[in-house]
Amino acid sequence: MLWLNGQLIEEDSARIDPRDRGLLLGDGVFETMLVRQGHIAFFEPHLLRLANAAHQLAIPLPFSTQGLGHACEDLLKASELDKVDRASLRLTLTRGPAPRGLALPDDPRPTVMITAAALGSPPASQRLIIGTARRNSFSPSARIKALPYLDNILAKEEARARDADDAILLDSQGYLACTTIASIFLWQKERLLTPSLKGPILPGITRAAIIELALALKIEVAEEEIAPSELTHADGLFLTNSLIGAVPVSQLEGWDMAIHPLTARLSAAYEALLLATER
Amino acid sequence: MLWLNGQLIEEDSARIDPRDRGLLLGDGVFETMLVRQGHIAFFEPHLLRLANAAHQLAIPLPFSTQGLGHACEDLLKASELDKVDRASLRLTLTRGPAPRGLALPDDPRPTVMITAAALGSPPASQRLIIGTARRNSFSPSARIKALPYLDNILAKEEARARDADDAILLDSQGYLACTTIASIFLWQKERLLTPSLKGPILPGITRAAIIELALALKIEVAEEEIAPSELTHADGLFLTNSLIGAVPVSQLEGWDMAIHPLTARLSAAYEALLLATER
Repeated sequence: MLWLNGQLIEEDSARIDPRDRGLLLGDGVFETMLVRQGHIAFFEPHLLRLANAAHQLAIPLPFSTQGLGHACEDLLKASELDKVDRASLRLTLTRGPAPRGLALPDDPRPTVMITAAALGSPPASQRLIIGTARRNSFSPSARIKALPYLDNILAKEEARARDADDAILLDSQGYLACTTIASIFLWQKERLLTPSLKGPILPGITRAAIIELALALKIEVAEEEIAPSELTHADGLFLTNSLIGAVPVSQLEGWDMAIHPLTARLSAAYEALLLATER
Repeated sequence: MLWLNGQLIEEDSARIDPRDRGLLLGDGVFETMLVRQGHIAFFEPHLLRLANAAHQLAIPLPFSTQGLGHACEDLLKASELDKVDRASLRLTLTRGPAPRGLALPDDPRPTVMITAAALGSPPASQRLIIGTARRNSFSPSARIKALPYLDNILAKEEARARDADDAILLDSQGYLACTTIASIFLWQKERLLTPSLKGPILPGITRAAIIELALALKIEVAEEEIAPSELTHADGLFLTNSLIGAVPVSQLEGWDMAIHPLTARLSAAYEALLLATER
């Protein structure tokens, strides 16, 4: 089952219009959310980020946050994913079908689609390479969760070909940005470093939560430009996103990385935060 | 009418699978072709470029060039666009529907779609701005005609908001790349300059034809890195793509630009080439 423009429908009979600009031009945005036993983690921050992205792209969002919340709940129930330990929800918003050309249509008819899938446990650790592609520091869409993921797909494939799980992407200036699906954090002794939001990265919702939890634990946190040479000096790395939480990096470019003890502590604090917000 | 995975079908009943990676991740490529009275201009170079792009992305192309040629002809006939003066064809190839995640599916089921539309006359001239976004010099997809066009859409909208037709995009290093839909050429007296294919630009089919025609006319042509300051010293600018041919730039950032007499000569030579290949 999926939810499409207000209706629950079987995936095999759901129809996307071949003129949809999401398909033809990558003209849209999305959010991916973690669901645990029917509870959607950080639903409001996700919807806020989606609404901000839609506003930046001038795509009308034709449903309220409350309406989309009910839609997600209906879909989880209909898919029998409201009782499972872990599931994922993806909410996609496109500018919808329109005549050919790049110009924005006068009367946009946006497409809103929600899909759900069962989700396994997050990986215990990740092996990374440094990818050859870079995030575009001069792209207005590099800071929003936009549909174009082709460069990330290619970097993920580069990682697989080199026997790794994911690739670190640098930005146009050569500073660390993120991986193909996650925010990145470095330990310098007991100090936590992560790329600044001034760079071409997503304002990660788990990233923000981890920073808040670290500060509450009196851990020093710096958001700044990070040169790739800092990776080799780091006392540990970990990745965050909504579906994996916080996962340590065990290997970088084939070299073993130490797993910093504070990563597990932050990960436990994040897990406790998720549990607390479920009650 | 459109042609989808081997079948001619009404647009309103054609169905794209909501799991299509073209829609969800921008995972695909396309070609846009000019049709004049049923003749597709440069069909083979377009199909060769598509096949090269598909190969780079490891997307199988499930139809032969000949098969796709017949499909285009069938669609033009069924749409009654085989007799009109000008029409456009768009051939889209995506990696097709697949489970969630960036990893390439083991058994890709690519989507191939061809759409056709009537086309008006090309514009007599274009007014340009220099856009704020830049093409990504470090992107493996910047040199192929991939689905992600969101940054181009935003730059086109920036141009519209500033009362222009299109925006010039620089590359990551600040050199000229292209506009949102066209290759760019500069005149320095009777010498022709255009950004090198080493930069993050498409290998334009009209661009290549114009270079060949210029050389045949004994015009000196240089493909190189071009600083934006060269724009203000240029003795004329013009744009090329498959649908517009060669169109002069009449205004840049609100300033009137001289139209170089050799632009019309090249445009006429290009028109003659199109006519010759139709016979």
